Amino acid sequence: MQQTLVQFHPPFVVFFGDIQQADFAKTGMGLVQWRRDDCVGQIRLPGCAADAGVPDMSVEDAKGAGARTLIIGVAPIGGDIPPSWLEALTRAAAAGIDIVGGLHIRLESLVGLETAAARGNARLINARVPPASLSVASGLKRSGKRLLTVGTDCACGKKYTALALDRELRLRGIDSEFRATGQTGIMIAGKGIPIDAVVADFLTGAAEMLSPSAADEHWDVIEGQGSIFHPAYLQVTVGLVVGSQPDAFVVCHDPERSTISGWPDFALPTIEQVIERTIQFGSLTNPIIRCVGISLNTSKLSSDARELTLEAFRDQTRLPCVDPLIDGVAPIIDFLL
Amino acid sequence: MQQTLVQFHPPFVVFFGDIQQADFAKTGMGLVQWRRDDCVGQIRLPGCAADAGVPDMSVEDAKGAGARTLIIGVAPIGGDIPPSWLEALTRAAAAGIDIVGGLHIRLESLVGLETAAARGNARLINARVPPASLSVASGLKRSGKRLLTVGTDCACGKKYTALALDRELRLRGIDSEFRATGQTGIMIAGKGIPIDAVVADFLTGAAEMLSPSAADEHWDVIEGQGSIFHPAYLQVTVGLVVGSQPDAFVVCHDPERSTISGWPDFALPTIEQVIERTIQFGSLTNPIIRCVGISLNTSKLSSDARELTLEAFRDQTRLPCVDPLIDGVAPIIDFLL
Repeated sequence: MQQTLVQFHPPFVVFFGDIQQADFAKTGMGLVQWRRDDCVGQIRLPGCAADAGVPDMSVEDAKGAGARTLIIGVAPIGGDIPPSWLEALTRAAAAGIDIVGGLHIRLESLVGLETAAARGNARLINARVPPASLSVASGLKRSGKRLLTVGTDCACGKKYTALALDRELRLRGIDSEFRATGQTGIMIAGKGIPIDAVVADFLTGAAEMLSPSAADEHWDVIEGQGSIFHPAYLQVTVGLVVGSQPDAFVVCHDPERSTISGWPDFALPTIEQVIERTIQFGSLTNPIIRCVGISLNTSKLSSDARELTLEAFRDQTRLPCVDPLIDGVAPIIDFLL
Repeated sequence: MQQTLVQFHPPFVVFFGDIQQADFAKTGMGLVQWRRDDCVGQIRLPGCAADAGVPDMSVEDAKGAGARTLIIGVAPIGGDIPPSWLEALTRAAAAGIDIVGGLHIRLESLVGLETAAARGNARLINARVPPASLSVASGLKRSGKRLLTVGTDCACGKKYTALALDRELRLRGIDSEFRATGQTGIMIAGKGIPIDAVVADFLTGAAEMLSPSAADEHWDVIEGQGSIFHPAYLQVTVGLVVGSQPDAFVVCHDPERSTISGWPDFALPTIEQVIERTIQFGSLTNPIIRCVGISLNTSKLSSDARELTLEAFRDQTRLPCVDPLIDGVAPIIDFLL
């Protein structure tokens, strides 16, 4: 199974190019945040606005420091790679450093990069491209335990929450693995399946492949995608819920939103609606599925409003409610176990 | 929009090769059944077991009879094309006849066929390959009316029922169009989108593109796929329901099944469960969605058992219940209108 996943290896060097808006550097920042010990440094070209706080280095420094993989940690609008970036990427590939990109364009299409990679015996890895050999889902129960993050919308903390839940489980000595379903998650995990890029027929099958049978006490913590009430992406969410067959799930929510982000004609569902429908669908492949907590993004709230909001959601749902960035996720793991 | 759909033009000639089992010739048989006036004849090689009852002809006869498109009406196991078939297909392409296949292998991969097509200025069309440029769904309400077939399982009459509903509407002088979502349906319609082959993210968007805004009184009759309780394919069904935003739907059901075909650990849902869940999801993009009938496959029942079964389902659902092959679908259209 392993060779069918997108997969690559540390030590990493993060490439930020000369990106002008730090906002576009989230992938690289996330990688350093979650895999600090695996990052030997960052490559920044003159004028770069992003800084992950790791040593600045040249391609040659990175090679000397043992970097096996260069991760393109930026997503420029339109996905174009300026010539100044390409020169550095080509030098890295020629030096035998694998290149990982989550861009819309495939790395092979960048002029000269494939030749350089062949010369250096380096791999070009597109984190947006799903494995070629996927199967239709069996629906059969797998051993081991699974925890999935879901949400009331896209971009409301599902990846961050899953990473935090996985870390908390491992801190407690529990065997756990983060399972990535999106490009940034894949870059952080070093492997995964970009689930929204899979052909529709194989989506549930890809979700099954992503979290295979495991030891009875092992937890897979699976990064959720989309939302089960989303007018454009709900099919991805439904397939991931049914194929993952989670024992437990956490609902991620941004309390400041009232409509689906980018789809202003669609009201944001309530947390209770998301819980009910996730259980409806999840119980098809796992009858004991249950919600074990709420993860809120309270970054836009004052400290007082934050406490009131968390308390209100605790009363309303009778579940642990946290902002994982501020509170951590220990109360959810306490409740889960 | 039109150029982004798979699309091809009559008159057709149906190609059956020398297929040994008539069962594998369903596509060609369906084409002749639903588009009889557009089929100039059939090409059968020595030993062929399939016969659609139209004139036998050679490639040259077909060209002489005005055929614009050769439709490969068989699906051999494994998708391989024997050399004897390839010879005939190559002659047709060289003669300027477009070739349409719904095989797993792409027509371009058949040795010599692409060269012959270039020589004859013929197109090679793979009905399994979705359009390249799809968009994410908007979720916005479109003008015109839509009727979707859904089912308690795969392969329980969704395509046949949709074709029959479309025909009945047109017989009554109502503006209607059949919208194909699978390869056989696409071959019959001459266009469509193979919805299960679309990348997951674009599934709802593809469903929107398939049934665009239309005149207020126009009906699109959309071929359903999968089942909303299917452990492997439900994501396709959910995306199709939400993207199609149907005003009305018909549930197709095989009363002889008790489990999902090919997934014996999964109980077949009841018609009521399918109605309830389809409305739950469909109301996200169309609040007035309603079920207007039940289409049963009663081919395995005796005449008495058939009547009792239809009556029982009528009592149970209080909706028109028909076997479209035997009864037609007039009672459903009466109820719909």
